[in-house]
Amino acid sequence: MSLLVVGSVAFDALETPHGRTERTLGGAATYFSVAASFFAPVSLVGVVGDDFTARDEAIFRGRRIDLAGLERAPGKTFFWSGRYSGDFRLRTTLATELNVFAHFDPQLPPKYRRLPYVFLGNIHPSLQLSVVKQVDERPKLVALDTMNYWIERTPVELRDILKHTQVLLINDEETCQLAGDHHLMRAARRVLHMGPRTLVIKRGEFGAMLVTEDSVFSLAGYPQADVRDPTGAGDAFAGGFLGWLAGVGRVNDATLRQAMVYGSVLGSFTVEGMGMERLRKLKRAEIGRRAREFARLTQFKL
Amino acid sequence: MSLLVVGSVAFDALETPHGRTERTLGGAATYFSVAASFFAPVSLVGVVGDDFTARDEAIFRGRRIDLAGLERAPGKTFFWSGRYSGDFRLRTTLATELNVFAHFDPQLPPKYRRLPYVFLGNIHPSLQLSVVKQVDERPKLVALDTMNYWIERTPVELRDILKHTQVLLINDEETCQLAGDHHLMRAARRVLHMGPRTLVIKRGEFGAMLVTEDSVFSLAGYPQADVRDPTGAGDAFAGGFLGWLAGVGRVNDATLRQAMVYGSVLGSFTVEGMGMERLRKLKRAEIGRRAREFARLTQFKL
Repeated sequence: MSLLVVGSVAFDALETPHGRTERTLGGAATYFSVAASFFAPVSLVGVVGDDFTARDEAIFRGRRIDLAGLERAPGKTFFWSGRYSGDFRLRTTLATELNVFAHFDPQLPPKYRRLPYVFLGNIHPSLQLSVVKQVDERPKLVALDTMNYWIERTPVELRDILKHTQVLLINDEETCQLAGDHHLMRAARRVLHMGPRTLVIKRGEFGAMLVTEDSVFSLAGYPQADVRDPTGAGDAFAGGFLGWLAGVGRVNDATLRQAMVYGSVLGSFTVEGMGMERLRKLKRAEIGRRAREFARLTQFKL
Repeated sequence: MSLLVVGSVAFDALETPHGRTERTLGGAATYFSVAASFFAPVSLVGVVGDDFTARDEAIFRGRRIDLAGLERAPGKTFFWSGRYSGDFRLRTTLATELNVFAHFDPQLPPKYRRLPYVFLGNIHPSLQLSVVKQVDERPKLVALDTMNYWIERTPVELRDILKHTQVLLINDEETCQLAGDHHLMRAARRVLHMGPRTLVIKRGEFGAMLVTEDSVFSLAGYPQADVRDPTGAGDAFAGGFLGWLAGVGRVNDATLRQAMVYGSVLGSFTVEGMGMERLRKLKRAEIGRRAREFARLTQFKL
């Protein structure tokens, strides 16, 4: 089944202990779409400026990614620049130039209005809500990403969109912040009362946890030998996760657990290169092999 | 098969956000022995003072724990007092009174000298080495605990005992410190060149990882609803881990993975009460149930 993603397309300039890039294509919707397209057709809603060329677009070509919803606006594309510390635990933002993204008002092309799987990337909760309102019939699944900025600045709007959300993808600190409880599991239970039936808690190198009303699934992080650049890992995780669910077309405990594995697989590949470098070269067979590695890494018999 | 443990028996005074205890029996060897005795007979080598009474000893009674190696010395038992922060991430030591433990010189009763499984608790590496030298024949397995204090203060002696060690239990920060590498997986590989064939990396709420030359196994932390007191969790983990291996009497990939589960189960119960409170009431059937919970928590089918 098809998957709609709404989010940022950006140019990034990255500095990590392993290298640097000048103005390379990034943005949450970019990582998400490329990751998800391994499993399901993706329709992308975003905005780019007139500095976004056919060469930049090449990353989407030859994949099941529809760009009818990628608006071209006069001006420059969203630009972000950041630097990571030696152990990747600290990220310093060097520059954020919203440019055309400052006026982003997502408009769904008519053919996107009946897509069964919807991912609302990390943008203003009111924009996320406007997307849900443009959908003709209730989608099979609405998933949401957010961040500390919206939790602090727009709590009312965030509570509103959460009521329309079935799956919330969030990290552990944000879970605690959103619930106002420093204990992660208690915080997770509280968030489940805000709307989402399913919570995906991303914990970076420690893996990820899936929490529902009646079950918890915890998946280890991939024991990475060499992290080159963590940018986009969370977005690629979300892409792998929702792409898998849209691909199988069924949401239940078994497919959600598989989705956690494929999300982790896509995230784990992403950090192996600078920017989109590793993800753009990734082959479907490599994904399958790493998923089986996750099984060997975590399975036991009592 | 039988399991020898050498380590501290102590009185602890604990303060956590959930309560406090005055002078309750603790110490690494105490948590370890009670945890391990669910799976295998344990022989304890340690030292207590003349303030250690029959009432204190009661915790070991009715379990498969032999106290022939528990020395009674004139003076007071090792005393430790500590306080935990609200989220348990910080531990402040309020008092450390080594007392009789300052002169601890472990002596193995003759009947302990052929025990096949040996756990050297977190004491001076030279004392750990002296224990290994008292063993008549090469044990089936020597496992070791250590800490940042010995890594910093006695690096030469620590390197020496590591050469006699098959399993090292250590936390993630100590792994990096010992290897001089801030990247955990690279650090783990380096430590495997110092002697141990198997590294058990304890990561608190994030679970634990088993690393050998050719495989990695990662087990999630138990999603604890209520942590009351983390004291002794690592020692109970070690007890569950080595108790299981001694109990089955075989060390291979499958039994090591099971041992990781049973170690985690014992650790997860320990934190549910103040001091030994929860562990001393624990039943074997509860252990089996929680092990199956770990399976539900972590297993998936691709």
